[in-house]
Order: sequence, then C-alpha cells, then structure tokens
Amino acid sequence: MGASAKRIRLGIEIIAGCSSSGPGTNRLTFTPEYWAAVDYVADQMAALGYERKTTSHGNTRFRKRDADWGEPAVAVGSHLDAVPHGGRFDGVAGVVAGVEIARSLDDLGVRLGRPYELIVFAEEEGARFGSVLAGSKALVGRLTYRELAQMKDANGTSYLEALGEKGEHASTAPGDVLGARDVASYFELHIEQSLVLEAAHVPIGIVQAIVGLRQYRVTYSGVADHAGATPMGLRRDSLAAAAQAIAAVEGLAGDSATGVTVGTVGMLVNEPNAANVIPARTVFSVDLRDTDAATLDEIGEGVLERIQRIAEERRVDARVTLTAESASVVLSSRLRDALIRSAERQGIDYLEMPSGAAHDAQEIARVTDAAMIFVPSIGGRSHCPEEDTPYEAIALGVDVLLGAIQTASERAD
Amino acid sequence: MGASAKRIRLGIEIIAGCSSSGPGTNRLTFTPEYWAAVDYVADQMAALGYERKTTSHGNTRFRKRDADWGEPAVAVGSHLDAVPHGGRFDGVAGVVAGVEIARSLDDLGVRLGRPYELIVFAEEEGARFGSVLAGSKALVGRLTYRELAQMKDANGTSYLEALGEKGEHASTAPGDVLGARDVASYFELHIEQSLVLEAAHVPIGIVQAIVGLRQYRVTYSGVADHAGATPMGLRRDSLAAAAQAIAAVEGLAGDSATGVTVGTVGMLVNEPNAANVIPARTVFSVDLRDTDAATLDEIGEGVLERIQRIAEERRVDARVTLTAESASVVLSSRLRDALIRSAERQGIDYLEMPSGAAHDAQEIARVTDAAMIFVPSIGGRSHCPEEDTPYEAIALGVDVLLGAIQTASERAD
Repeated sequence: MGASAKRIRLGIEIIAGCSSSGPGTNRLTFTPEYWAAVDYVADQMAALGYERKTTSHGNTRFRKRDADWGEPAVAVGSHLDAVPHGGRFDGVAGVVAGVEIARSLDDLGVRLGRPYELIVFAEEEGARFGSVLAGSKALVGRLTYRELAQMKDANGTSYLEALGEKGEHASTAPGDVLGARDVASYFELHIEQSLVLEAAHVPIGIVQAIVGLRQYRVTYSGVADHAGATPMGLRRDSLAAAAQAIAAVEGLAGDSATGVTVGTVGMLVNEPNAANVIPARTVFSVDLRDTDAATLDEIGEGVLERIQRIAEERRVDARVTLTAESASVVLSSRLRDALIRSAERQGIDYLEMPSGAAHDAQEIARVTDAAMIFVPSIGGRSHCPEEDTPYEAIALGVDVLLGAIQTASERAD
Repeated sequence: MGASAKRIRLGIEIIAGCSSSGPGTNRLTFTPEYWAAVDYVADQMAALGYERKTTSHGNTRFRKRDADWGEPAVAVGSHLDAVPHGGRFDGVAGVVAGVEIARSLDDLGVRLGRPYELIVFAEEEGARFGSVLAGSKALVGRLTYRELAQMKDANGTSYLEALGEKGEHASTAPGDVLGARDVASYFELHIEQSLVLEAAHVPIGIVQAIVGLRQYRVTYSGVADHAGATPMGLRRDSLAAAAQAIAAVEGLAGDSATGVTVGTVGMLVNEPNAANVIPARTVFSVDLRDTDAATLDEIGEGVLERIQRIAEERRVDARVTLTAESASVVLSSRLRDALIRSAERQGIDYLEMPSGAAHDAQEIARVTDAAMIFVPSIGGRSHCPEEDTPYEAIALGVDVLLGAIQTASERAD
C-alpha cells in the first residue's frame, strides 16, 4: 500500500526532539515538551484538513473538518507521553502511524464508510501521576474528575491542575465519555517491547489478548539501629525484608503454570539510606501480569501472603496498597480477522501473540471493538534510550492497518 | 563510690542545649554550638582547677594547672560532635563521665599515682568532614595535616579552615602526636548503641575488642526492559541481583563461626526506579564487621565471590569498590582486668562484650593501653533523637571507672 518509512521516520525524529534534557526521551504528560509533541501532530493533521478536539481529561482527538463528530468512527490511537529516560518509539510509533494512515487515505483517494479519527491518549505510562492508562481510562469513564484531581505528581500538582488551561478550554464537556456511538472500531499499532517478533523474524504481531495487571506499593518499617553495634539476631531491617520479598516476587512469577506470568520490583526507595545505619523504611513496587485471570489472582495472593509472612518473621511492619489493577482483555475477533485478512492479502508475515504490556486499547476495548498490532523492538529494548524499531516495519504495520480499516469501516447498511 | 546521677544529668542536658535547630541534637565539629559544648566542659573543669590545651588538630585536653604535661597520665576521653538529628548521649556521656570523675576524685580526696587527663576528641562521627575518628586518628599521627586540609565539609570548607583561629592558637605544635609517654592508660565510657545490655539486664559492658570493618560499594548494571513485555527468562534485572546479594550478606554474616559478625546493606539506590521498568542500575553498600580478623577476611571474600557469581548467573555487570577498611583492635587486658576488679569490688554486674561500633579508643589503643566500658542504650536506639540511657547507669559506669583509674595509676616504681 502507500505507507512511507521515510515520512514515518521524520515524524518520530521530530517528536523525539520534544524532550527535556537528559539521556533518552523525557516527556511527561502535560509538560511543555508534551504539548510541543501534540502540537506537531496537530499541525500535520491540520495540513490534511483535520481539526483538533481536546477532551476535558486531556486526550486529543482529530477528525476531518467536514466530518460528523456524531457518527461512529474507525479510529487509530496511541500516546505521546514517555517514561523518564525512555525511548523514541513507545506510543509515538502508533501516533505517527495514525498520521501516516490519514496521509495515505488521502494519497490513495480511499473513501471510508465511516469517519477516520486519530486519538492521542494522555498519561498512558503513568510516569507523571502514578496511574497507567489514565487518559484512556478517563475517556471511557473509568476514572472520575474527582480521581483525576487527587492524582498528584512528585511536586504535588494534580492531573487536573497540570492540564490547567487546556482543560478549561476543552472541546468536550466534563463527564463526556467515549462509547461505541463515537468509535465503532479502534486499532492501535505499538512497538512490541520484547523479543518475541525479533526471535521469530516476523515483522507484525497481531495481539489476541492483553495481560491483566496488579500493581502494589509495599512499605516495610523497621528500626534504624547501628549497623556495627546491633547483632544480626536483634535487627528489624526493612531492606533485608524487601530483598526477601523481591526474591519471592521473582520466584512466584517464574514458577507460574501459564509460563507467561511476569513479576517485577521496579521501584525501591530506602531510608535513612546510610552505609552504617540499618534501614528503617523501605518502599517498593510490585508489578504482576498474566493473560489468565485465575493465575493472576493466585500469584497476587501468593505474593501478598509472602510479604506479610516476611514482615512477621522479621518483626517489621508491612503496609500494602493496591496502586493499579486491570483485568486481562481479549481483543475483538472481528477486527483481528480484518487485520489477518489485510496482512494475508498483502503477503505480510504475521504472528498471533499476547501483549505483556498494558495499552490504551484495553480501555477502549471495554466500550467498543478494539484490536492491536505489534511491530518488532530491536533487542527487545524499551523504556530506555536504546529503544528501536525498523521504520520499514512500522510502514508495513501501517499497510496492514490501512487494509483492515477499510474492511472495518464497511457499513452493514 | 561518689558519682552523682543528678550532676551527670545536668551536664548532659546543658550540652544538649548546645545544638542548632531541628529535631534531635545537631552539633557538627567546629561549629559555634560545638565550641559552646567544649567551653561548658572547660568551665566545669576550670572550676576544679584544670587547664585546657587545644591540640593543633582541634582536640581538647585537660589536666590540673599544677600537673606536669610531660608525665604519662591516666586519661578518660570521648567526643562532643553529633550526627545530624542525633541523640544526647553518644560521646557526651563519656565526656560528662570524665568531668564527673574529676569531681569525684576531688570529693573523695583520691590521690592518683599519675596525672588525671580528660580528652575531648574532634570529629568522631565524621558527620561534617566525612571521615570517622578524624580527631583521634590525627592525635595519634594517623592523619596528616595535608589530609586534614583536604577533608572538606558540604560547603567546601576544610577541616583546618573550620578549626581556624583555634588551630592557630593551639597549645600544641603541628606535628605533635600523642603516645604512651603522654598517656599511660586510657579509658572511655560510651553508650552501647545496641540492645545487648538491655536484653541481659546488665548495667555495664566491659569491651574486649572493637570490631574491624570493611565497607564496599557495589554497582550492578543490567538492562532497563519493559516490566510487562519481557519474559522472566530474558531479564537482566539489577535490583533482583542486589536483592540476592543482600540475602547473601545477611546469610554469610548470620552463619559466621564467631557469632559476632555483622553484615549490613544500609544504602541502596535503584535506577530508573519506575514500577513498570526492569531496574538497570542498582548501587548498594556492604558493611561487614568482626572482632576476628581472619573471620572478617573470610566473610569479605565470601561476600565478594557471591556478588560476582550472582552477576554471572544473571548476566549483569558488577563493579565493587572498597570504600572503608579498619583492623579490629583487642583492648588492653591490664585495663580490662582493672575494670573487672573495680566492678566486682563494688558488686556491680557487668558483661564482657565486643564493640560493633568504631570508637576513639581504637585509635588510642594503637599507641598506648586503652579500655572501654558500655552503658545501656534504651531500646538500643542511637544516632536519633530517641537515643536514651539511664543516668544511674552512667553514674555506675563512673564508679567502675573510678576504681579502675586508681588501680591503673599505681606505678610499678
């Protein structure tokens, strides 16, 4: 079809330039560099005749100026926020693909049976306000304004405060949520963020299901005794407790029956954090994922039980908060079929696979038909400056999407 | 004997008042509040007929005005500097005990066979200039003026610059070091800073040896992959590696044959430190202590070997630096015997034990006979505002010291 790897590359490079200093990409939601990236996309879309609509939760939607916002669209979306010191492709590849689709539809003179819409979701990573998929969750009505007002960044600024003026001038009214009457079919292209496609030498993954997620924040509180004077048997060491919990998370996830469970302790903060003082307070995250709901339940319970048992054995206090939770989502078979037929028609090799990462598509899937494709991550690297994907693979992905969008936009009537 | 818990309490309370604002005691070496504490001690000693001598390294020595500074003394010493937000007793208890001994010697009309000396060591905590035991090390010639000039505080002021005028008007000449010709017998009373005495319901600990120390800084470097998308078997997680190393430190120290080995990971910093990113860089400290040099060597080697093995198994990179090292010190059996006999004569219960913390006595022990006694720390708390010790226990300690000082000052000739 008509996708251009060169144009895709240019878009990704320009958006990579919208970053605060430091190694890798640094673009937290609602910062000046974030809006610079959104504005660049808006300029590209404006040149193709699209108008921009900011939702009251800070998401950005684009449709042609003459399109009817009341008609169910065939939509493509992803996000532009990045984790600290992240890569150029996570989210951005999907948004740039959406722009390239708009261009290709014009270039090829394709008339769709439904309006084409591009959506840029806010705060997918949760890197600023601590809650992943916040924009898409709010858009489908699963996060309230009250919750958005309570979500704070490291400086105590809330999601709604940071959105500020853009929120006040939003084109949608507070309370507006997106449903099947707005979007009939949703597609998302995303980098795989792992090694499966690369290992299989296949350029396209068609996602069957997105894993469910449980994230906890654990605080172990012990006593800050002298590291030299306190015998091993009299210690109440919060970091030693956390170390045991980290091993338990790794062990339980690794031994899971499904073979796809992952468990990660990515964040840990230790206090008072001096070499000669026994740690008194250690806060850490636990991230558990599986496509199988029963397994995720079981591993989650196992981890919580171990965290408590470690606390009892070591006479430290344990406080555990559930910080994020999402159910696993099976994607639309109608749209997966459209993707498969598009790939096969064009002779593009593909693999059906689960997604281990959370994506905005799983929120949209709660209200309408949604599907996803993956493009390979070189070396599986993601959320780091080395994150990379061949531009040709993204162009192939756009071609697969273009075919599927045409099929999906055919109206029964 | 004659020690007064009431007078000891008054001295400790007045010195606690010599503190900059903030919770707990804040008294860094050579600050106005530090000199206020030294001046209070000097006033007390002056009232008893003692003169003050500031050494060129900022330590303060007291002998009776009519005493011969050329004669080997029986000395008592400790320190008045405090860690930030520290307690009232660490160091101060020993100095106030030394003042109380001077008072009691007069009250009881005791005539010692040698001059009595009180020493206040500078920068024991290393909290201002980053090097523990700096004053006592310099006093015995193990830190040069060049090194004191290079030791800087957080504002870039050097040890010698901070000492300033007091150093210029020092009663001792640069290069003067203390030896057995100056002090024949050295005693130090210190709070235990742990739970051993409290758990045993014993008011006095007689220290057999001060532990040797090895401190390492370890950096594990892995790969910051996506926490959801990266299968467990493909991870190179630096924090999971560190957790295993923490367990190894705890295990090797806990299983040590001497039973007194301690091993602590007190400091840990993790990067990029986000819940949904596999950690790529984890830096942590390892602090190992034992009174037995061979055991410390063995545990040190064991820990380093495990750190490397963990790195190999997990395909992370390990970098290890030795950040501090000190040899264990066995204290004088002559002075320990004097302490034991004094306690037994007075019917005061005692426990022989090692010191897990570093103390000025270990530096003095390099040049002359030195011994130490511990008084209980309530709840084992130290280096914090909650640090506490019963005044009666300090008074009992002074009584034990008084007897031992008399024995130790008896001259063979």
